[in-house]
Amino acid sequence: MGKNKDKEFVKDITKMEDDFPQWYTDVIKKTDLVDYSPVKGFMVIKPYGYALWENIQSFLDRRFKETGHENCYFPLLIPESLLNKEKEHVEGFAPEVAWVTHGGDEELAERLCVRPTSETIFCSMYSKWLTSYRELPYLYNQWCSVVRWEKTTRPFLRTSEFLWQEGHTLHETAEEAQTETLKMLSVYKEMAEDLLAIPMIVGKKSEKEKFAGAESTYTIEALMHDGKALQSGTSHNFAQHFSKAFDINFQGREGDLEYPHQTSWGVSTRLIGGMIMVHGDNRGLVLPPRLAPIQVVIVPIAQKKEGVLERAEELRKELASKGIRVKLDDNVNYSPGWKFNEYEMKGVPIRIEIGPRDIENGVAMVARRDNLEKGPVELDGIGDGMVKLLDQIHDDMLNRARESRDAKTFTFETYDEFKQKMEETPGFAKTMWCGDRACEESVKTETGVSIRCIPFEQENLGDVCPFCGKPAKHMVYMAKAY
Amino acid sequence: MGKNKDKEFVKDITKMEDDFPQWYTDVIKKTDLVDYSPVKGFMVIKPYGYALWENIQSFLDRRFKETGHENCYFPLLIPESLLNKEKEHVEGFAPEVAWVTHGGDEELAERLCVRPTSETIFCSMYSKWLTSYRELPYLYNQWCSVVRWEKTTRPFLRTSEFLWQEGHTLHETAEEAQTETLKMLSVYKEMAEDLLAIPMIVGKKSEKEKFAGAESTYTIEALMHDGKALQSGTSHNFAQHFSKAFDINFQGREGDLEYPHQTSWGVSTRLIGGMIMVHGDNRGLVLPPRLAPIQVVIVPIAQKKEGVLERAEELRKELASKGIRVKLDDNVNYSPGWKFNEYEMKGVPIRIEIGPRDIENGVAMVARRDNLEKGPVELDGIGDGMVKLLDQIHDDMLNRARESRDAKTFTFETYDEFKQKMEETPGFAKTMWCGDRACEESVKTETGVSIRCIPFEQENLGDVCPFCGKPAKHMVYMAKAY
Repeated sequence: MGKNKDKEFVKDITKMEDDFPQWYTDVIKKTDLVDYSPVKGFMVIKPYGYALWENIQSFLDRRFKETGHENCYFPLLIPESLLNKEKEHVEGFAPEVAWVTHGGDEELAERLCVRPTSETIFCSMYSKWLTSYRELPYLYNQWCSVVRWEKTTRPFLRTSEFLWQEGHTLHETAEEAQTETLKMLSVYKEMAEDLLAIPMIVGKKSEKEKFAGAESTYTIEALMHDGKALQSGTSHNFAQHFSKAFDINFQGREGDLEYPHQTSWGVSTRLIGGMIMVHGDNRGLVLPPRLAPIQVVIVPIAQKKEGVLERAEELRKELASKGIRVKLDDNVNYSPGWKFNEYEMKGVPIRIEIGPRDIENGVAMVARRDNLEKGPVELDGIGDGMVKLLDQIHDDMLNRARESRDAKTFTFETYDEFKQKMEETPGFAKTMWCGDRACEESVKTETGVSIRCIPFEQENLGDVCPFCGKPAKHMVYMAKAY
Repeated sequence: MGKNKDKEFVKDITKMEDDFPQWYTDVIKKTDLVDYSPVKGFMVIKPYGYALWENIQSFLDRRFKETGHENCYFPLLIPESLLNKEKEHVEGFAPEVAWVTHGGDEELAERLCVRPTSETIFCSMYSKWLTSYRELPYLYNQWCSVVRWEKTTRPFLRTSEFLWQEGHTLHETAEEAQTETLKMLSVYKEMAEDLLAIPMIVGKKSEKEKFAGAESTYTIEALMHDGKALQSGTSHNFAQHFSKAFDINFQGREGDLEYPHQTSWGVSTRLIGGMIMVHGDNRGLVLPPRLAPIQVVIVPIAQKKEGVLERAEELRKELASKGIRVKLDDNVNYSPGWKFNEYEMKGVPIRIEIGPRDIENGVAMVARRDNLEKGPVELDGIGDGMVKLLDQIHDDMLNRARESRDAKTFTFETYDEFKQKMEETPGFAKTMWCGDRACEESVKTETGVSIRCIPFEQENLGDVCPFCGKPAKHMVYMAKAY
């Protein structure tokens, strides 16, 4: 007893224009989303942060099931020999896996890695299970954590362990696998826009940037306040790479043995980091309403006055009955002013203040977190009004994020202009590209900027690649990235 | 290509009276709940098995939240030095943990264990976070997998990795911690009875059987068809054991530094194994209705006849609109008879057969899986009827399980009688006990029978311990156990 407590306490949030990374760290710590754990690079996701993940899970799980997928659970540990079966895959992942070498007091005959992703172990079972085309497609998903040993980590954005889902599907034909790959990418885009209020650029990764072992990788890419991009979800078409390496085959319609076509797709807790960096401001979090654990907070004013708490509780019940996640904060240890700041920092979309005079006048003060507007709203019918307002806030946030991204998206004529703009007003560069990996790599080495994707929505911005002068092949989005 | 497929195929289910363990293995394999993975002792939970876990999760998660708990997520890996902090705890768990020694190519400075349970890492953060009594209680839970290196494993019942939830709470006073410990135990009992239709004996573990590091452990115990008991959920009161070992303290109401009182509680995928061994029969699974992924299956008869599929689909919609999880199986590749067997084996609570003559007569044939009764039910109002029938089946299954358990529960006069009955008609032995650990250990060594719990509902069966002749202290339930 009596030891000194080594408590961390962030007094103020650093301004994002002064130091964006510090702003991010201040926000996630001060709003109680996460904390650093005793294991370097591993984070503790605290209840307020985990509630965000639960809402993402719940949205996606419903959509996965609606699109015919089933959940399952595969082992955490993967034998080294399995990881080694697909050459590009093991090269991509082996340098960053954690190895289990002992079980209890005994050394294991073969090392086991903590899954960095589960293609190999799914494939080992698929090879055992699949016999006929009649059993296809396999449409499986799992929710779990994965471990990738990272040297530099930041909570949510890059951590040695993170939570995610990974879908792993098998299909009879190449066409069906491609349809699945794009379908799940569109589910991710829908989730990003309808739940997180984040507009996404949707497209294909370049050969250099695709997943280790994939034939093609598709991605949704978002732009953060600081002009850096965040890869927010990926969907891979493996063609028959893994099914050949793992001897997964089936009797086809014509009686021949065939290899199935395979996909995998995943999103992770990284989305939470992206949501913070797209919507947050210098007061803290700004949560999109459908994601917010608390959508409306009711703060009673002069709550000791007769009738105030009763009316506030009535209001709480009315909102709850409309399906709103509402909290009435009647804690007497804190002043209304303190509560205003607290819930503002925590990003609660709507605050309702209700005091004796409001009640007399049949109104309450309603404050929006996203645009900081505030005004009286009649108590009569306020439940339906708040349902509509939450939708309005969602739409406004999505629009503002789109405007902000578009304002940070630029075109350019020359490599020099590209470098200058990327330095002075970073964001998405839209440009034609020759399609050559060597050109892409040289730009990345020189500037740190990568091709984020070849968007599905192509525009013709010219005929030559501004980096090397060769004929242009695609329009691409480029950015520095998290 | 062309390799021989090494497919496992269970043709028939072994009769449980012939070989109970083989019956269990046949059932879980043939009904597609799980499969063995390439890693010894680790199982793959297939979609039909995982759907059972999702329903358990959903029931408990709702109840945890209703009782004020929040979910969070703590790291998978725990430094060896943390595990070592509580003496009894490390002695209990160190022999069975998996050790991570390398991250990528580098050997770690300190070994990390894959969590066998998370008390130690929760405590390390609680020690950092807690400052004042005002912040208490901490009511946190996490859903995750844990790893315990087991020599002999059986799917669901004992595996080297399993899925579970672990609640970890801190309280200001001993009384509050005890209230919490018992509250969560009662949530488990409620889940077992209301969801799984399994009656539980509720009580306290003996000193010998309690959790490593706990002050007291409470348990819910079920009896399987074969007369062996299954510990199905535990709730521990740690008193201040861990808070002292981990220096978790806070400023109390009087200004002094105090140690909080702590609890933890968990249930796992083991419950699924118990549910199978309580309700299953020689035809396969018998699923309690509230747990069943498919509650009603509709099998159309002569489905090519005009109007049959349309009427079956109407019926499906009606049941779905009543909140029933219903499947219409209109697969033309299988006969109705094949489907009857399949869904019977898979334990679907209700099968509805509907053919041209039924439709003419305004009825459908309704077959119950639990008691194999079958008869016509009028189509008019069948939706509400099936809702009621599902509840009736639940109640009947719970009652039958209780009767079966009670029939296998015996008392006895002498140690010899105890041994004979435990051999010939195994089950729960209800007996007085002296309370001495030495006596308990000698009985276990000689007979393999352990004290399952000191039940809350005590009866006075006599004045002496039948094993050693000393004065009796408690009435206990004893059994061989999984």
